[in-house]
Amino acid sequence: MENPDYIYPATIAFADTDASGWMHFPTIFRHIEAAEHACLKQRGVLVFDRAEGGWPRVNLNTDFRKPLLAGDVIEVQLRIAKLGASSMIWEFEVINAVGEVAISGSMTNVRVDATGKTQAISEQERKALS
Amino acid sequence: MENPDYIYPATIAFADTDASGWMHFPTIFRHIEAAEHACLKQRGVLVFDRAEGGWPRVNLNTDFRKPLLAGDVIEVQLRIAKLGASSMIWEFEVINAVGEVAISGSMTNVRVDATGKTQAISEQERKALS
Amino acid sequence: MENPDYIYPATIAFADTDASGWMHFPTIFRHIEAAEHACLKQRGVLVFDRAEGGWPRVNLNTDFRKPLLAGDVIEVQLRIAKLGASSMIWEFEVINAVGEVAISGSMTNVRVDATGKTQAISEQERKALS
Amino acid sequence: MENPDYIYPATIAFADTDASGWMHFPTIFRHIEAAEHACLKQRGVLVFDRAEGGWPRVNLNTDFRKPLLAGDVIEVQLRIAKLGASSMIWEFEVINAVGEVAISGSMTNVRVDATGKTQAISEQERKALS
Repeated sequence: MENPDYIYPATIAFADTDASGWMHFPTIFRHIEAAEHACLKQRGVLVFDRAEGGWPRVNLNTDFRKPLLAGDVIEVQLRIAKLGASSMIWEFEVINAVGEVAISGSMTNVRVDATGKTQAISEQERKALS
Repeated sequence: MENPDYIYPATIAFADTDASGWMHFPTIFRHIEAAEHACLKQRGVLVFDRAEGGWPRVNLNTDFRKPLLAGDVIEVQLRIAKLGASSMIWEFEVINAVGEVAISGSMTNVRVDATGKTQAISEQERKALS
Repeated sequence: MENPDYIYPATIAFADTDASGWMHFPTIFRHIEAAEHACLKQRGVLVFDRAEGGWPRVNLNTDFRKPLLAGDVIEVQLRIAKLGASSMIWEFEVINAVGEVAISGSMTNVRVDATGKTQAISEQERKALS
Repeated sequence: MENPDYIYPATIAFADTDASGWMHFPTIFRHIEAAEHACLKQRGVLVFDRAEGGWPRVNLNTDFRKPLLAGDVIEVQLRIAKLGASSMIWEFEVINAVGEVAISGSMTNVRVDATGKTQAISEQERKALS
């Protein structure tokens, strides 16, 4: 990914695997979400708060290109691809230890208040995310 | 979904939630995969075997439309949308207790042998899946 | 287990396994907790509520006696072994498809209010749990 | 813990929480297992291998003393408390960001071969673990 907004190093845990011997596919989202949250924190943007709401996903699109194993050192690369009125699109790539794109995709998150109702991204948030 | 190939009832567990109070988004794939495996078993098609291989995902595309809570009774509806030479596309809908489509999407799986190498879907498998 | 207070049938999912090929040990607690919650609901006792609190665990003691595989049909048997002033002890057994005790143990839960502070089990709760 | 054999830093992920707002209790075992595996690797001892076997748990005993939240920085401290003929006992403490013991306990693991049969801990393993 050219010019990622955030790079998050992680390791595939034994708990991330399944009986196939490889990583169980949904467990990668733990690492991608951890990267997303670290990026938001770094920019001073709310991750989640019971009183203030958060950013639930409305779409997730993922390509699984290379299998991963327990112990594999990965790098999650993130880019904020689009900021809408109340939504944002993250693009992500998971890079394996030999520099290949093992997994790539995007997710669309919507800013909601504490009740789950969509709300506009504030000017402060927009500035921090741009 | 019209004419689903399989209907799998399930319940969102407390273990499926996160601190937002709602279902943690990747945990739905546990239920979708359980539905997929039940459908394969019913048709006598291999789910996974160390000697025979399996069906890893190469693409996953999901829309999250309605939030789910612990205790929610759901129904996973599946349809085999396409059978390729070595891949298949599943479409899925997760129906909530009041009959709404809470989550929908598709996943593309590829038939691989025990070493992870792509192989053709056999005639027997094709017949069972059609 | 003689005279269980609740019997909960479940199936080990592929998502419950790890690269060893067998069930990943902590995933059994999902099924044990689901059994516990079903038992509480049946008796009309609070499971968890942001305003009312819940029953966090303070001790967990588990023996793993037989391995489990994806697809294994199990039965979680529960017994309320002790009711204290603000705590309760659950005993559990996980029975495999051939009737053996695959996993057994106990967990001690404490009744807390919404802020996490220990509170006395109410007379109504005590009656429902006895 | 005095004289731990291994110290493993980690962070509680949002994926580790449940609707109570706090960490979902079984998710701590992911971090404890990651610490255990890192300790084994450092000493050159097998973690798991399909041909060589591994170290499944036969007992787990855990006290949950302080709640943990998403984002909490923790330290898993491990000590090898006992080496038997074919089993070993790990003691663990999870230290929270203010230095308190949030969680403590022990687990007993048994050395098995690829078929799951108990085997003696080798002299090489014993030396590496002592």
